[in-house]
Amino acid sequence: MNPTTFLPMLTRVLDEVNQISLPGPGFTRPSYSNEESRAHECIAGICEALGLKIRYDPAGNLFARLPGRDPSLPAVHIGSHLDTVGQGGAYDGTAGVAAAVALAAWFVERGQPPQADLIVTVTRAEESVWFPVSYAGSRMALGRLHPEELEARRRDTGRTLAEHMREQGFDPDAICGLTPLRKGRFVEVHIEQGPVLSAAGDTFALVTGIRGGLRYRTAQIHGAWAHSGAAPRAARADSVFAFADLVTALDSDWAETLARGDDLAVTFGIVDAASPVHAMAKVPGELGFCLDLRSDDKAILERIDAKLAIRIAGIEAQRPGIQFALGPQSHSMPVQLSAVLLEGLRQAALALYRPLPEMLSGGGHDAAAFAAAGWDAAMLFVRNEHGSHNPDEAMHPQDLAEAVAVLAHWLDHKQDGN
Amino acid sequence: MNPTTFLPMLTRVLDEVNQISLPGPGFTRPSYSNEESRAHECIAGICEALGLKIRYDPAGNLFARLPGRDPSLPAVHIGSHLDTVGQGGAYDGTAGVAAAVALAAWFVERGQPPQADLIVTVTRAEESVWFPVSYAGSRMALGRLHPEELEARRRDTGRTLAEHMREQGFDPDAICGLTPLRKGRFVEVHIEQGPVLSAAGDTFALVTGIRGGLRYRTAQIHGAWAHSGAAPRAARADSVFAFADLVTALDSDWAETLARGDDLAVTFGIVDAASPVHAMAKVPGELGFCLDLRSDDKAILERIDAKLAIRIAGIEAQRPGIQFALGPQSHSMPVQLSAVLLEGLRQAALALYRPLPEMLSGGGHDAAAFAAAGWDAAMLFVRNEHGSHNPDEAMHPQDLAEAVAVLAHWLDHKQDGN
Repeated sequence: MNPTTFLPMLTRVLDEVNQISLPGPGFTRPSYSNEESRAHECIAGICEALGLKIRYDPAGNLFARLPGRDPSLPAVHIGSHLDTVGQGGAYDGTAGVAAAVALAAWFVERGQPPQADLIVTVTRAEESVWFPVSYAGSRMALGRLHPEELEARRRDTGRTLAEHMREQGFDPDAICGLTPLRKGRFVEVHIEQGPVLSAAGDTFALVTGIRGGLRYRTAQIHGAWAHSGAAPRAARADSVFAFADLVTALDSDWAETLARGDDLAVTFGIVDAASPVHAMAKVPGELGFCLDLRSDDKAILERIDAKLAIRIAGIEAQRPGIQFALGPQSHSMPVQLSAVLLEGLRQAALALYRPLPEMLSGGGHDAAAFAAAGWDAAMLFVRNEHGSHNPDEAMHPQDLAEAVAVLAHWLDHKQDGN
Repeated sequence: MNPTTFLPMLTRVLDEVNQISLPGPGFTRPSYSNEESRAHECIAGICEALGLKIRYDPAGNLFARLPGRDPSLPAVHIGSHLDTVGQGGAYDGTAGVAAAVALAAWFVERGQPPQADLIVTVTRAEESVWFPVSYAGSRMALGRLHPEELEARRRDTGRTLAEHMREQGFDPDAICGLTPLRKGRFVEVHIEQGPVLSAAGDTFALVTGIRGGLRYRTAQIHGAWAHSGAAPRAARADSVFAFADLVTALDSDWAETLARGDDLAVTFGIVDAASPVHAMAKVPGELGFCLDLRSDDKAILERIDAKLAIRIAGIEAQRPGIQFALGPQSHSMPVQLSAVLLEGLRQAALALYRPLPEMLSGGGHDAAAFAAAGWDAAMLFVRNEHGSHNPDEAMHPQDLAEAVAVLAHWLDHKQDGN
């Protein structure tokens, strides 16, 4: 199977979808926007022309079915999302939809269907920068959205998810009590959002799990304002020095965790001691920060969270007048992807090429929502430069085509690796 | 001498001046504003009624002269400023002017003048939050303002120092080539801007020197943006971790400097990793910060600055992809106050009360401008709660009255301590 076979459809989908965007730089298709809807229509048009059977659910998720040879097998949903962050890249989400369409086109063209039904699946509202709701589209399809989440407001417009859905012609009232999608299998191809594959010279990889997260979005350090020249060292309660103590302490806890072979990532994404009250000549009495802890193992997250409390107590004891207030914690569970599907994909890759590298996903993806709903779910990561969620995402379509070839082989053969 | 004698005039000046302010909280009299001018007129009115001879220089500084017994002695200028920071306190500057007026009133009432001419001196534009120029008023009086500094723009209005001076009826064109104030002695009473006196239970103190500063106002750390879940630890160039390394390193250098008996204060007053590009789920690729180093000894500032460069080189070596850019450095020289005046004030305090504590000033004051011009200058600090430059400054007028009594004794006796 020559991967270049898939290139024309892959590049066609990428090109056509990415012509739909708010003004640049990069690509902007907000969740439940006209742009996202037009991108869905573009995919629906291509799939219809291929003879697939199109269905939209009340949330606006798109399903395009190519019947398989054995109707007794669970359907294989392949896809991703078409919304983007503001000024995002050309591949996050879209590459996975292009992969699904190229697979369907290949089976249609070949004239012999895959083993099981292949359902090109295009979700809505995956990027939670717009609505503070994770995997809104997938979770509506799976009957797992909480009704109050329909009232979440889009950060740019201030209007609710329900209002935006209605505006795009969908039916939020039908979401509660919706019959969930019939359980099948879900496979998502996605660009890697980090530099691992590129650094290792690998073109694509199997994803074994999705890291969970434990987050403090609105942590504060309260100290005491003072004059930078007049306050003696011993009398200071400097929030910046207290913060630095915490960062260096967690830095060493992080190194130790990795040395033990455990998985962990520690990020302070926002640090704010730059309000109008802060000044050159003032000891900073306040500092705000975000803390994002990620791991493939809930127990590790809990261990680091406990350690964090101990570290903070130590700093508060060392620095009189300093008080940390971590604020509300949010978290997402680490997700194990399907061992059965992984084994099938491993064997397909071996049959076509070589053993694939295996890795964790650091970011969340629709596959996590399907796995959480009890589906067998799997992911392939494709090498990509410059990270994701920015205009500089840089994937080679040839790399994507190689990954798609593995899926084509897998869909055409035994999918369980047995 | 009973210090309560001074209380009526001290509270009168504080009350009348602080009735002049832009809306609160706190007190706002910008440099070269109508409010500052009205405050000067208030002092001129009181001094005129006392029979003092009023003079304004072309910069709008106010001089009110009470002739002394011995015209051969250098005049003693006593005073401070009446402008405030935005939403400042009731005492920073104003307490020193009140002290000067209360002294003059006491000598007038007693009917016997001080040894030397006493000149109530009220400067303009001491608070450099308005114009980025230090001690603008004093330095114009002393013939030490650079002509280009007249073009400095006020941060709130965007208009130049020259324009604001003209608007208040003064003459910026006369500043260049102005005959400097005839060299005398300058004594300033000021609230302490830190907690030292209050913590020690002292009411007031002699100031032996004014700390100098070495500042980086626009330092940057450049790293690499990445996905917080997807970027492995070893591949990160996280500007926040690099910043924390620097803070903890300087924290230990600071402790070591103090342990050696040297004077140093280290403050990172503004830390900014909170731009619209920063996000919870992004490894921060950029961080901006201010660094304010203060000491009574230029050599110590230079030693810490050299250490800073070594620390930064070490962090850059440890964290590939991290680059510090400190940006322009600004500095002010440490100032020694007059040993002769200090000795005189020490003896006056001993004669009246007790030995006075002696301390450094962390912040800059008009006295620094006079000392830099070769004048004998001295300062007294009065105990104050809650720091300065905020609405909560809290000085007891009784503490100020005690300090004024020392000055009255000194002015009435030998001023050189010989």
